[in-house]
Amino acid sequence: MATGMLLVCGLALFLTIKSNLLHSQQFTISFQRPSDCGVEQFYDISSQSCVKCGPNQSTSATGLSCECVTGFRVLATNGASITCQQCPLEKPAVTEDGYGCILCPGSLTEQGTCQCPSGSILVERDVQGNPLEEARCEVCNGAEPALSAPDSYGDRCQRCQASLINTSQSCMCGSNILAGGMCFPPNNLPTAVNPNVNYAELSLPVQSAWFSTNLYSSAAACLVYTNLTACQALGNMCVMNMHSFSSVVNDACGLYNTIFRATAALGSTQDISYWRANLPWLYYGDQPGLANRVLQTEPLPTGFSFKGRNRNTDINLVAAVYNARGDFLQWEKVGGNNLQLCPDTARRQEAAYTFGTAYQETCVLSVADLLRVYAEPLFYDVFVDLSRGEDRRLLPLPTRNLNQEYNRKFINRGNLNDWYLSRRVLLVDTLSGREKSLGSLPKVIRIASSIRIGFQLVPGTQKGQVFPPLLSVTYSDVLIAAPNTQTVSVSFAVDYEMDQTEAHMKTDIALGVLGGVSVLYSLVKTASWKRRIGSPLIDMETVLKFLLFYAGDLANVFFFITVGTGLYWLIFYKAQHFVSVLLPLPGLQEERFVAYVGCAFALKTVQFLHKLIQQLSVDIFFIDWERPRGKANKTIQGNGNGEAKHNPSPVSIWRTYFVANEWNEIQTIRKISPTFQIMAVLFLLEVVGFSSLALRDPWSDLQRPPQSYSPPYSLTLRYGLAATLWLCIGLLQIIFFTAFHERFVEDKIRQFVDLCSISNISVLLLSHRCFGYYIHGRSVHGHADTNMEEMNINLKREAESLCGQRGLLPNTDTQTFQISITSRLRLQYDRILEPLSRRNGPSRLVDAASGHPFDQSTKAYHTMNRFLGSVIDHAHRDMEYVVRDKLFFERVIGMEFMEPMDKSIFYNDESHSFSDVLFYGNEATLLIFDTLFFCVVDLGAQSFILAGVLTYVQQMIFRLIRNGIGRRNLANKTLVDQRFLI
Amino acid sequence: MATGMLLVCGLALFLTIKSNLLHSQQFTISFQRPSDCGVEQFYDISSQSCVKCGPNQSTSATGLSCECVTGFRVLATNGASITCQQCPLEKPAVTEDGYGCILCPGSLTEQGTCQCPSGSILVERDVQGNPLEEARCEVCNGAEPALSAPDSYGDRCQRCQASLINTSQSCMCGSNILAGGMCFPPNNLPTAVNPNVNYAELSLPVQSAWFSTNLYSSAAACLVYTNLTACQALGNMCVMNMHSFSSVVNDACGLYNTIFRATAALGSTQDISYWRANLPWLYYGDQPGLANRVLQTEPLPTGFSFKGRNRNTDINLVAAVYNARGDFLQWEKVGGNNLQLCPDTARRQEAAYTFGTAYQETCVLSVADLLRVYAEPLFYDVFVDLSRGEDRRLLPLPTRNLNQEYNRKFINRGNLNDWYLSRRVLLVDTLSGREKSLGSLPKVIRIASSIRIGFQLVPGTQKGQVFPPLLSVTYSDVLIAAPNTQTVSVSFAVDYEMDQTEAHMKTDIALGVLGGVSVLYSLVKTASWKRRIGSPLIDMETVLKFLLFYAGDLANVFFFITVGTGLYWLIFYKAQHFVSVLLPLPGLQEERFVAYVGCAFALKTVQFLHKLIQQLSVDIFFIDWERPRGKANKTIQGNGNGEAKHNPSPVSIWRTYFVANEWNEIQTIRKISPTFQIMAVLFLLEVVGFSSLALRDPWSDLQRPPQSYSPPYSLTLRYGLAATLWLCIGLLQIIFFTAFHERFVEDKIRQFVDLCSISNISVLLLSHRCFGYYIHGRSVHGHADTNMEEMNINLKREAESLCGQRGLLPNTDTQTFQISITSRLRLQYDRILEPLSRRNGPSRLVDAASGHPFDQSTKAYHTMNRFLGSVIDHAHRDMEYVVRDKLFFERVIGMEFMEPMDKSIFYNDESHSFSDVLFYGNEATLLIFDTLFFCVVDLGAQSFILAGVLTYVQQMIFRLIRNGIGRRNLANKTLVDQRFLI
Repeated sequence: MATGMLLVCGLALFLTIKSNLLHSQQFTISFQRPSDCGVEQFYDISSQSCVKCGPNQSTSATGLSCECVTGFRVLATNGASITCQQCPLEKPAVTEDGYGCILCPGSLTEQGTCQCPSGSILVERDVQGNPLEEARCEVCNGAEPALSAPDSYGDRCQRCQASLINTSQSCMCGSNILAGGMCFPPNNLPTAVNPNVNYAELSLPVQSAWFSTNLYSSAAACLVYTNLTACQALGNMCVMNMHSFSSVVNDACGLYNTIFRATAALGSTQDISYWRANLPWLYYGDQPGLANRVLQTEPLPTGFSFKGRNRNTDINLVAAVYNARGDFLQWEKVGGNNLQLCPDTARRQEAAYTFGTAYQETCVLSVADLLRVYAEPLFYDVFVDLSRGEDRRLLPLPTRNLNQEYNRKFINRGNLNDWYLSRRVLLVDTLSGREKSLGSLPKVIRIASSIRIGFQLVPGTQKGQVFPPLLSVTYSDVLIAAPNTQTVSVSFAVDYEMDQTEAHMKTDIALGVLGGVSVLYSLVKTASWKRRIGSPLIDMETVLKFLLFYAGDLANVFFFITVGTGLYWLIFYKAQHFVSVLLPLPGLQEERFVAYVGCAFALKTVQFLHKLIQQLSVDIFFIDWERPRGKANKTIQGNGNGEAKHNPSPVSIWRTYFVANEWNEIQTIRKISPTFQIMAVLFLLEVVGFSSLALRDPWSDLQRPPQSYSPPYSLTLRYGLAATLWLCIGLLQIIFFTAFHERFVEDKIRQFVDLCSISNISVLLLSHRCFGYYIHGRSVHGHADTNMEEMNINLKREAESLCGQRGLLPNTDTQTFQISITSRLRLQYDRILEPLSRRNGPSRLVDAASGHPFDQSTKAYHTMNRFLGSVIDHAHRDMEYVVRDKLFFERVIGMEFMEPMDKSIFYNDESHSFSDVLFYGNEATLLIFDTLFFCVVDLGAQSFILAGVLTYVQQMIFRLIRNGIGRRNLANKTLVDQRFLI
Repeated sequence: MATGMLLVCGLALFLTIKSNLLHSQQFTISFQRPSDCGVEQFYDISSQSCVKCGPNQSTSATGLSCECVTGFRVLATNGASITCQQCPLEKPAVTEDGYGCILCPGSLTEQGTCQCPSGSILVERDVQGNPLEEARCEVCNGAEPALSAPDSYGDRCQRCQASLINTSQSCMCGSNILAGGMCFPPNNLPTAVNPNVNYAELSLPVQSAWFSTNLYSSAAACLVYTNLTACQALGNMCVMNMHSFSSVVNDACGLYNTIFRATAALGSTQDISYWRANLPWLYYGDQPGLANRVLQTEPLPTGFSFKGRNRNTDINLVAAVYNARGDFLQWEKVGGNNLQLCPDTARRQEAAYTFGTAYQETCVLSVADLLRVYAEPLFYDVFVDLSRGEDRRLLPLPTRNLNQEYNRKFINRGNLNDWYLSRRVLLVDTLSGREKSLGSLPKVIRIASSIRIGFQLVPGTQKGQVFPPLLSVTYSDVLIAAPNTQTVSVSFAVDYEMDQTEAHMKTDIALGVLGGVSVLYSLVKTASWKRRIGSPLIDMETVLKFLLFYAGDLANVFFFITVGTGLYWLIFYKAQHFVSVLLPLPGLQEERFVAYVGCAFALKTVQFLHKLIQQLSVDIFFIDWERPRGKANKTIQGNGNGEAKHNPSPVSIWRTYFVANEWNEIQTIRKISPTFQIMAVLFLLEVVGFSSLALRDPWSDLQRPPQSYSPPYSLTLRYGLAATLWLCIGLLQIIFFTAFHERFVEDKIRQFVDLCSISNISVLLLSHRCFGYYIHGRSVHGHADTNMEEMNINLKREAESLCGQRGLLPNTDTQTFQISITSRLRLQYDRILEPLSRRNGPSRLVDAASGHPFDQSTKAYHTMNRFLGSVIDHAHRDMEYVVRDKLFFERVIGMEFMEPMDKSIFYNDESHSFSDVLFYGNEATLLIFDTLFFCVVDLGAQSFILAGVLTYVQQMIFRLIRNGIGRRNLANKTLVDQRFLI
């Protein structure tokens, strides 16, 4: 039972395996190609395998069927298979159709058919089709009137070639020249032609089979018989030889030229003197400067326009196409891939022929593919189609062949005035490099590896007029070694150029004028600075300072000129209806612009670092007005609760800590949110798609379909766009923060001033030696160092206006001042701080004796506090001050006219200009610096994202520096312990 | 003199104008094409213009030369021009070669040559080529043994077509069937065939000229004469008819099927039973489920491997190409554009045949171009080339023709089991739609508008084995109306699939297990929460709370599973050597993944908002330990300078302001810099190029050359990549900040604790009703409300360890505690705050009597301060507390085991866990939330930049909310005026 089951299971298993084995074989076949079949096999196209032929059969030329071997005739055909029978001895030859046997008059060919001598034909049937017993060889009558010769099959006499008859009135060439199957009478052409094609890049002349066969016959047929096709063929050989002239006159171009000169009497075609009748037009003349005249004299009749009713951006090019034999093939609209070797979608390729779109496509092609696809070279005569309605006209496109040689020199690679313009281009020439026979693999192929169509705008045009475009072609010679692995890089470009001289001149004028003005402005600044530091001498430091100020002003000049230029291009290029401006070309024309941006950035950096260092060394002191409770203080009118002079409790330092802490925190706040700035700019550029506006094409769509052609970016436009966006968003942020946020949500600067007032602490800031700012913070309540209850009451009283006003002068509200102090006051100030600054100096022996540093510090603090308090309170007769308004003009040029000789001057300053020593008051500089940083990174790396990230890092680093060193400076100057500045 | 100069100038001007006018005309030509020339003109290919012919001449068929009009012979040729002469009346006809005149035996043709009756030939010359005086018409002898008939020129008798001889032993078909120039004996095929091609998409049958001419003859020649080419031609007609069967048996596929059945005896080719000898293989069998067996049984013998020594990513496809007439053309390597109709560079097109690269290319082609390029349809038998060295084998590629009909139903669009697989595809068929003649414009063309090659991985393979790929073809029928404007969209795709069931199952198991665990964890959390709020009841709120906790835990589960999955694909797909996994396909296979990510994000949002709301309502109070100077304070051991009990000066509130201000500032600080996080991720993804890792190909290069093919992105990989990068950078930042920055630069949390200690202020935080945190800040110096001098001395003493330690317990350092307080304590706390909370309630009449709100506030503040101070000082007998360490297990599960019944419990907490009520302590939640936010935006918009920007905005908004509301809460709870929280 169990065995039985085992058996059944085993059987099942075996069957499964067997069926699997069968199955696994079922669907694969062996791979055989016609070339894999043997001599006695044919390739069965149904089963895609080699099949054996019948007896006495061998494979045919195609390999797809069998045929009888020599000496056998076909007896019967039965579908795909045939039966062969040996011919009897009395009829040893097989007929041409292979079905019969026949007796030959002469010998047999290798194929077993009858052979007749040359000039005679083989006759196997009579005229009604009846087979003859014996084949006949008949001689064709070559004389008049028969003029017959065997046809190509050798089985019929027919009229012989016209040139033979023309030359000799018979079918014999005789003593004339026989070439290429034609007969020529003696003529002016050298019979020994030079069949070499010179591959100048490889310094390799190749004796071309095509030239050997056809050069003389084409030239002679062209000259003698005016054979139009032969003329074209000759011209094409000259094109294949790169239009090159040399002292050798019997090469293709030499022969062309000989015929050109010999046929002068025929006159010119189409009224163009360079275009001889019957010949192809290959050259413009060789007068010096002709290229210049052709390219820059007469504009095209129609102008281009990007927008509006007359929109016209189509570049219509047509080409007359010829093959190497000189046959005219057709008129072709240039487009698709007839000049563009790189494969791409029609939509993208069409973009090349849209005026204003900088087109550039490069790719690498396989040589094997080129050999396959371009087996025969095609020749293009390219024209601009100027047709409007019925008036159909063409303008020939001048061509600059960069490989053209003149006496072994590349003449078209130098100056425009030396160029020899030409006509007719080829794309891929796989023909002329075939050395031995036309069927062999070429030794060298020549590819138009760079084709560039350049348009130049007529200077000053308002109608979008351009000069005739120039077709520049560079050919590459590729030595064929291993075509399957060889590749060649090809490119196609269309670009648009305008004369930038005027734009450059305008920029230079603006730069000169504004640069001059900024010198004046910097001089004023330097003068103001000299006054503020209270020094009348002009020394090295003054010159340095002038240069620093000038750097800042010049940076602004460069910045606004570059942004202006960028914006100009952006607006004028993208928004113009009729084309009147074209973008500067990358490279030389943009170099200058990039240099300006670089200057702006470098100078701005200098200015920024200068301001940063200034801010990091500002002098600051917090004056505490609070007097100990209970100790009657004559100068302050307290809310005196009539206490006696008991042991005073110390005045708490915590208010000073609080104010110092807040000051520390507002050091790096800005009028805008720098991170939001970066995010917003990135969002607009990369997500909304503003970056598309910087593409070198005339469209202003933000989102482009991914299938469409994407032209390269213009650096100028990128800069203009990025800088404008950055400035606009910055401006919007400033407006939002000043007009809305600071008014309705939070104003850190205002809060600080209020805090000073509530905490009974004044702030003295000295940004220069004798100039600075003063925030008057004396509490209107006399005391601020009190408990919550009293603080609340004080705040409430003030809210209800039950107490005095906060101003320095009685009954005023002005708390913030700009101050010009006398040198005397400054000296006193410095004298008090002297012991502390000594402490920071190199340690000396006396230090040990000068007591504890803490003591010194607190002593200096108390002395300073008392001293400054008394100055503000007019308690020092010799350090008096007056309060006045600044003149309008003083405000404008930022300089005080009055020198503080014996009295310090306090200028009312409602606008909190003390923020000038913070980031907050220097938003313009910071914003422009950030803008330039962003743009410079982008110009270098062409990546807005990288620019955004690096700008963020830069902002972070400078914020850390400003905060860190600023905090240390604050601790040093105000004597507040750094640990409380958190 | 002046007149003379005027004259000269005028002349010069005139000459200039004249030369300019001449010049402007010089380089344009009129645009003429051969078709523009009249009847008596020819197109001169040199001058590219129309030129008049000589007398008695008219334009030839090509338009490029002239020929003599009817009745005229060519007298002489002179280069391009000829001279014509009228034939004399006695020889009115022109010879075939055009050079002679002759007398005809019969009538003349329209061209003026002699005409012979059909079946006879025209003889103009004798066998030696001598012209005859009178032409002869000779009848070809059709009987044995001549078997001759006129050739196609009608000037020679030659052996007639084999089928005629085979059928009738003569050149007459007689009573047999003559079709397509062949003669067939009566056979099994219906003689009335259906020449209609059915364009099913348009519901338009077109009577095809090609089918009318060739269908019957091909079928008959295939069946009767086993003509292999005819068999292929018949098969191709069946392919052009979309392999469709119907009840009509006399259409192309019907005839194929008839012959297939009729030739069963011949057996099959290559051991494949569906491939009949002599016939092309068009169908796999029609057994149900065969498609399934063919596609999913036997893998290819070679596996694919992405890396390493055995790297094999080449998909070698070859195709046997046939034309419509059935000729075998060649074997072609599939690649380039033989299946890809969209033009593109070879490099990009090759990417389609690299295993693992999801390839998809779509483009729009112009119908005019298709008509021009694909004038003749080509037919492809596609195979996978399995050749290894000498062993050359092919595997036929099963084809799924989506347009195949069976009895008017599209059978291949439904279930896999119902598919009828087939063989042989065509790309563009412009032939079968020609209705009247083969030269006319087709009425309809058929294009393979979607070609897709699908690979399926063998489940569980470790060797990179795949099943035979499936070629799916969808054809579009385009009715030709205006070919120049019509377009058709075509696509080509290669995709790779694996069975995702196992992956899904594993995900589901992980989800189930972790989901279950997280229920337990959420239960513990809920229990902990119940204990902390001191409520034992299970009510609706408890359930809600449980759900909220569960949301958070489940979000984590989803998050880690999705990140794990993403990372799994990223690593395993990109790093595998032998292919063992393939990416989930977009659409259905990724839907589930996206849904999980969505769940994670939604649940995480719930958790985040829950935490945010918790944080915004936390209870906090600052306990000021400072006692007025001079007033002897029993509990504090001051540095007693022995003052008497005079009028105490008020204790300054500024320290409390300072501490509150700092607390306000640390509310939203985080362990990482969120903006840096975004910038770093964007930098890595977009600038460094990590985003390339998310492309659906096997390569892991970061920077791809712009010319290479760029496959679509995989959502799974994008998510895995973005989330991993985000988490990694976040982790690195946390490590940097905790290990370096907080230790060596600045630790805001530590600073705050220090500040409490220096300012003599303790902080009591109650995050739950009976649970919270306590920061012990009693100054070790007794007083902190003092001047700078004393502060400095105090700090110095502490630095030199000259005073006590800061801890709550004597001789300890522990300043921070988690506290579980008794309900009694909490009740008392609430009672003190009650008047204030009433204030915030609706206004009532009693309010007017309850005194000034300021008074109430300060009274409450002082009461609270005294009350909490006394509790900490153990001054309340019934509100005692003990200090103890938390058990390890308590820490782990975050729940206190001990219930504070009559004594509150203070747990030592060195790790500053009070930051749990700040953003700082919830970094994990925030980081995951940000990650998910970023990824979800990216999944939706496929733009990392947009995701970055939106994440920044989201962070900004939540920070503003947290700061704004947190500040108001702080002001409310601590009674510090909001104006000091700046």
